[in-house]
Amino acid sequence: MKRLFGSPGRKSGLILRIGQCMSAAVSIGVMASAHGFSSTTAFCYLIASMGLQVLWSFGLMCLDIHALRFNKDLHTNIIVSLFVVGDWVTATLSLAAASSSAGVMVLFVTDTNICKSDLNLSCNMIQISIAFAFASWFLLALSSYIMFWLVASI
Amino acid sequence: MKRLFGSPGRKSGLILRIGQCMSAAVSIGVMASAHGFSSTTAFCYLIASMGLQVLWSFGLMCLDIHALRFNKDLHTNIIVSLFVVGDWVTATLSLAAASSSAGVMVLFVTDTNICKSDLNLSCNMIQISIAFAFASWFLLALSSYIMFWLVASI
Repeated sequence: MKRLFGSPGRKSGLILRIGQCMSAAVSIGVMASAHGFSSTTAFCYLIASMGLQVLWSFGLMCLDIHALRFNKDLHTNIIVSLFVVGDWVTATLSLAAASSSAGVMVLFVTDTNICKSDLNLSCNMIQISIAFAFASWFLLALSSYIMFWLVASI
Repeated sequence: MKRLFGSPGRKSGLILRIGQCMSAAVSIGVMASAHGFSSTTAFCYLIASMGLQVLWSFGLMCLDIHALRFNKDLHTNIIVSLFVVGDWVTATLSLAAASSSAGVMVLFVTDTNICKSDLNLSCNMIQISIAFAFASWFLLALSSYIMFWLVASI
């Protein structure tokens, strides 16, 4: 199995996982501290999806640290196949969550002007949270494609 | 290059392209005939994204028909790499469009009851359109992974 940039057990892979974990955690933190987010299902779903991504990326981050520390090889078929499925599911859910929140936000900002009229809704905070969710999805999509490439190139 | 299920120039590939094209076209038709869709950006974006998908899938469908009729081989590196990039971009845009519309629809149906109070909005039609958009994305995602597998397994 090839040793690509971002593959499991490499420093670049660890950096990708840290990036995913951090941006998903920031997205949750900013959304949870925004006023009035809980009245919209899409924003609650964003928190749930980012929570799942934090758990997944944190788990793989720990595995990468373990592999780097003890010089273990994670390039086995079963491990990488599991990573592919997990990455694909979490990446799809993250993109869906970020997009649905962005769709609602565009409705609030441009279509209805709710953001200007409703002062109990922290629109800026919610937008920052959505931006971090997209960043987190992008990094996860990168990992997902690297894993898929590894499995396919056996 | 392997000849997988759904790869270009095979009947299974053609069926996948026809499915993508048809479900995206139905999604556009149902959305365009729904009352009040144009006041929401997410629904207009769904039409634009499904329009792009119809064009892309229709083009590849014609190419598949040509290859099947004249027994041409589409399994060259450059062609399949182009298909991978195109499939990936359209699949990402389609999922984003379907999810953003779904997020807005959930807001209208469960969070605010706009669907019950605003009789000028054809909520059922919009929901059907979103369902077809998700079906179309799923078929495109299948094609996208098959193409990626083909490129990676060279």
